[in-house]
Amino acid sequence: MLPGVGVFGTGEIANVLVPLLREKGFEVRAIWGRTLKEAKETATAQNVSFHTNVIDDVLLRKDVDLVFIVCQPFLHAEISVKALGIGKHVVCDKPAGLHQQDALKMVRASQYYPTLISLVNHPLRFLPAFTHMRRCLQEELIGPLPEVVLMDVRVQMGTLFPEKYNWMCDAQMGGGALNLVGSVVDLVTFLLQQQAVRVHGVLRAYTKTTPAINGIRQITAPDFCNFQMELASGTLVTVALHSHTVPAKAFSQEVLVYGNKGHLVVRGGDLFVLKEGQPKEEAVYVDVQDLHFSTNNSLLPRPYIKGLCKMVGALKEAFGSKESSWVKAPVSTAATFEDGLYVQAVVEAIRKSNESRQWQRVQLSTDAPLNHDQIIRYARMSTM
Amino acid sequence: MLPGVGVFGTGEIANVLVPLLREKGFEVRAIWGRTLKEAKETATAQNVSFHTNVIDDVLLRKDVDLVFIVCQPFLHAEISVKALGIGKHVVCDKPAGLHQQDALKMVRASQYYPTLISLVNHPLRFLPAFTHMRRCLQEELIGPLPEVVLMDVRVQMGTLFPEKYNWMCDAQMGGGALNLVGSVVDLVTFLLQQQAVRVHGVLRAYTKTTPAINGIRQITAPDFCNFQMELASGTLVTVALHSHTVPAKAFSQEVLVYGNKGHLVVRGGDLFVLKEGQPKEEAVYVDVQDLHFSTNNSLLPRPYIKGLCKMVGALKEAFGSKESSWVKAPVSTAATFEDGLYVQAVVEAIRKSNESRQWQRVQLSTDAPLNHDQIIRYARMSTM
Repeated sequence: MLPGVGVFGTGEIANVLVPLLREKGFEVRAIWGRTLKEAKETATAQNVSFHTNVIDDVLLRKDVDLVFIVCQPFLHAEISVKALGIGKHVVCDKPAGLHQQDALKMVRASQYYPTLISLVNHPLRFLPAFTHMRRCLQEELIGPLPEVVLMDVRVQMGTLFPEKYNWMCDAQMGGGALNLVGSVVDLVTFLLQQQAVRVHGVLRAYTKTTPAINGIRQITAPDFCNFQMELASGTLVTVALHSHTVPAKAFSQEVLVYGNKGHLVVRGGDLFVLKEGQPKEEAVYVDVQDLHFSTNNSLLPRPYIKGLCKMVGALKEAFGSKESSWVKAPVSTAATFEDGLYVQAVVEAIRKSNESRQWQRVQLSTDAPLNHDQIIRYARMSTM
Repeated sequence: MLPGVGVFGTGEIANVLVPLLREKGFEVRAIWGRTLKEAKETATAQNVSFHTNVIDDVLLRKDVDLVFIVCQPFLHAEISVKALGIGKHVVCDKPAGLHQQDALKMVRASQYYPTLISLVNHPLRFLPAFTHMRRCLQEELIGPLPEVVLMDVRVQMGTLFPEKYNWMCDAQMGGGALNLVGSVVDLVTFLLQQQAVRVHGVLRAYTKTTPAINGIRQITAPDFCNFQMELASGTLVTVALHSHTVPAKAFSQEVLVYGNKGHLVVRGGDLFVLKEGQPKEEAVYVDVQDLHFSTNNSLLPRPYIKGLCKMVGALKEAFGSKESSWVKAPVSTAATFEDGLYVQAVVEAIRKSNESRQWQRVQLSTDAPLNHDQIIRYARMSTM
């Protein structure tokens, strides 16, 4: 039987997630919101019987065994660590907390409870175009994987900022283009199975206000990022993320990987290959499947929703096994909390490079205070 | 009457240039080549009556009043300075010599002979899409020019290296992508009328050999460049030049300029605008004029040839005036030797940044040895 689900978060992403979960057979038992009002709104809209603004009221429910954390990033670590301590499976939205210290706490908790699922929601890993691209790379369709010379990513997105001011508008919270950077960094690791050694980046916050956000609080999060990464093998990754310049609601994404025997490219949801000596590109995978529910807001681009849909499907498979509570294989391609920590390290190095005007080494933090005691304390607590 | 022309250089570019000059009414009197054999080949192919491998044999001809220098860059400064000293008008192909010292000599010679034409061949300045783009920017179609926030250039070119090894394969000579970088840097100045304060760049030389170049001498010039420039006003310019990854003979170019009231974009030879609040781009200029001679080699992309064609037309106008030997207006948009010096300074800073992994200030050299004596000596010499 599939586990009951508790959703931490309200608004757009919760309104997309709840129907997706139900479609795959999961029961959504509880909605948590920052305020009771927000929780109630989403619970009513999605017809969920229980809502609250108290974290433990969800975590301690016996009918909730899996939590989806899609609220503000500053709560990601706290809720993840608590949930694991109480014995619940966790899928946490990106980013994995506010900074490496947060992510490290999450990693330690997930290592402490290896029998529980602990994943970061990086849905592009589940998008068929990218799973096919990864397989093509492993099968050396364009030459040996460690000899991939260049990866070039170009994302153009019309809207990065929501209708109402929230963490996505805040640079300190990792909002705006920084969140998108995290998704791209994770995709690079997923596809090339290598980490960045050093990075260089330029960030810009061109959009200060929008028609809806124009009061005292202005947007501080960047809406533009141009960055380069050098991987362990010497592979160069160049990335351009434009947002302020793109017509609202538009979204386009191109991911090119160049090997020494040709290139692979994902445009939108389709995958093409050009092998050495061929005159033109051939389609490897064409995305014909359409989403059977409408998404009229560009804050969640369709490739991300499609990926999320596949990810929830993989979770269903993982739990649907007869032998044990869950099996790893269906979710083995998902991002772990360790992946989330690495993404934080790269994003931090890009921010630092933007300030120092120099390339920065990616430095994985290992010296954060141990949170062993905290994990245990949460595990024993029944209320906050 | 139009001046007689001497062409310094052989091979592909000479074979394109000579017919263009004739079409506009110029008489080509002499061809100079590095070797007599090369000079003879091009002279025969183009039906030019005189050829030589001695520089002065062209410069001292009474029927030559304008020289086009399209040979190896290490000779650009020498020939330009000599030609001006002997009283000939000069159009020198990019780059303006090998380094800033070369370019500075050229600048001083051109300042010493202000009555002579001295231009660097940056043909994109004459491409209608870019002249229109410049006018739209001046007319503040997308907001005030100094407030342009971002310019993004993407060039994909199938072939950077010629059939036979020449300077384009040599990093020290400024070959490969470095030459292309120079063209883009010049285009930025032309369009935004601002210079770069600092730059960051990544260069890569992925192609070491080609089917034709695979002997002892390998390619050292980069075929990939990703760079960023910050202009005096704070405008950011991001540029991606890909070559090794592109199917042979392909060429595509996209130049986007974002103001605070919309954006302008040149794709190929066409110009589009998106003004604030509009749902989609509108065409401002569509290139319908086609070249009436075929160019089957991608080393000279069509936009460059079209620009060159327009530039030769502008020279015709400049000389065709009745009042004086020439008038400035028709060639006033062309790149001067000062522009050539600036481009060298930026390219040098990009190379340095690639080595230092840091942003570099663009530093215009002014301390090269004065070549006043040399200019005078050349002016008095009759043979070398």
